[in-house]
Amino acid sequence: MFDLPKQVKMVEVGPRDGLQIEPKILSTEQKLRMVDALAGAGLGEIEVGSFVNPKAVPQMADTAEVFAQLGKRPGVRYTALWLNPKGLERALESGRVDIDGKLTLTASETFVKRNTNRSIDETFAEMPDWIARYRQAGIATDGLGVMAAFGCNFEGYIPEEKVVGLVARAMQLMADNDSTLSKLLLADTMGWGTPRQIKSLVGKIRDKWPELDISLHLHDTRGCAVANAVAAMELGVATFDSSVGGLGGCPFAGHKGAAGNVCTEDLVFACGEMGIETGIDLDALVEAAKLAEDLVGHPLPGKVMKGGTLTRFKMPRA
Amino acid sequence: MFDLPKQVKMVEVGPRDGLQIEPKILSTEQKLRMVDALAGAGLGEIEVGSFVNPKAVPQMADTAEVFAQLGKRPGVRYTALWLNPKGLERALESGRVDIDGKLTLTASETFVKRNTNRSIDETFAEMPDWIARYRQAGIATDGLGVMAAFGCNFEGYIPEEKVVGLVARAMQLMADNDSTLSKLLLADTMGWGTPRQIKSLVGKIRDKWPELDISLHLHDTRGCAVANAVAAMELGVATFDSSVGGLGGCPFAGHKGAAGNVCTEDLVFACGEMGIETGIDLDALVEAAKLAEDLVGHPLPGKVMKGGTLTRFKMPRA
Repeated sequence: MFDLPKQVKMVEVGPRDGLQIEPKILSTEQKLRMVDALAGAGLGEIEVGSFVNPKAVPQMADTAEVFAQLGKRPGVRYTALWLNPKGLERALESGRVDIDGKLTLTASETFVKRNTNRSIDETFAEMPDWIARYRQAGIATDGLGVMAAFGCNFEGYIPEEKVVGLVARAMQLMADNDSTLSKLLLADTMGWGTPRQIKSLVGKIRDKWPELDISLHLHDTRGCAVANAVAAMELGVATFDSSVGGLGGCPFAGHKGAAGNVCTEDLVFACGEMGIETGIDLDALVEAAKLAEDLVGHPLPGKVMKGGTLTRFKMPRA
Repeated sequence: MFDLPKQVKMVEVGPRDGLQIEPKILSTEQKLRMVDALAGAGLGEIEVGSFVNPKAVPQMADTAEVFAQLGKRPGVRYTALWLNPKGLERALESGRVDIDGKLTLTASETFVKRNTNRSIDETFAEMPDWIARYRQAGIATDGLGVMAAFGCNFEGYIPEEKVVGLVARAMQLMADNDSTLSKLLLADTMGWGTPRQIKSLVGKIRDKWPELDISLHLHDTRGCAVANAVAAMELGVATFDSSVGGLGGCPFAGHKGAAGNVCTEDLVFACGEMGIETGIDLDALVEAAKLAEDLVGHPLPGKVMKGGTLTRFKMPRA
């Protein structure tokens, strides 16, 4: 427990991963307010939107416009998501997106086919082209994201050896294409992980590749997201995707998005109370969560925004 | 992490700690259905209600009637709460309550005065009479509960030394009155704890009194309850109070009860996935949570009841 990192970096994905499943389409101006409230609270990296098919994800249709109008704050990275070359092209055209050279895999064969119409092998086959595309744009490919790394509602539990094997294969492919994997994101896309599984898989990967910078993307589908983040922190993981207010989740069972990301301010609260720096102003972040709740028009699952921060008290430090 | 207990005992407090803040008064028949659904799911101990002033807590006015009509299942303990001698008398009169000889303290001077109109010293002064009362009823006093053991919204952070001192003082008082403290409940009444604090205080108490059976009562006010329970499990704690559906909590900020107990089925899910036995049928428990949600008439904060269990998948075991 006392190997907890001294600092944790929160990557805010609410405006993209959270909003994308909301049925109510926010205006460009509303999105700009939300993104700026987050940057103002001290978030250093914000996934602003995605360059995807607007017919498939209507909420993201104005991502280019959001970037065009964005009043950028110094030191903040404003990122986006894309799934195909056309999306990357649009991000590059915008000229305002902070672009990471990152490859993406899915550990579940069933899910990757449903989601991208490709097999895992086909995903690997396209990777050299992605590396070349990034290189052409002057961007080094150094990241890998593995979706559904803990389990998949369509396929079941994902064996750890499978994930380790996929990482090794991607690492080799990147080396073969003059790139070096340094940043690995493990995504618990459907909220299957529990602290023991998180520690086991992260521990195996850390033992095998101690130089990798591991980050986690944790959905709170079954209530373990904060516990999972803490478990990973105990193994030194210091970067987490998260969603303000737990955006993407909703207390109503019928809501398609019952499974939001781990709630940013709940995790920032936990970090703060455990003596871990995040550089975030928790009270300002709670205001951003309340703004997000107002904008989407239904209660969000975040707890600290209702239970209240403890910043008015002075914490005793041993 | 791998010192996790093999078995965890869940003590269901939803029908009492959860329901007592619900504005809608449930009928006796509805309470009986909820309690029996919980017993049917495998909960081995259920806090059914409280013998308190019905004017102060109208929801608990029919506790005696609930006990009178309760169809008890073998092996299940049906307990209740009381705060004064009159309450204990009513529990004894009922003849159907499983009574623990337990003393209660509050670590916050401000909170205990607001809540019970007594100081901490005055609480200690009344303990010999409580021990005598239990003894007269043929019950050994072997338990102590410490409320607000981690922090108090009225008083701030509670120093660990204060909690340790209170436990030592109660232990001595019990010994002076021919009783032996063997069961200690630490309550994070207002949801101040985070995993580091939980491990620190539980660790100190366990080191000082390794023979004590420690249990936790964790409110999820700020989203850390599951993480806190897992942290305690890593130190061998194997008994937790919890509330079906997270009853007592509500996603709406305006709801007085935003701070429910740790959700029973979310913690049972985490235990199951980590290979820890609870003896509980998770799918049946989720049905009990849905029943509780129907009865109180608003969404409950539990996650597994919306995200779904994983019992249809077979977990690989190392």
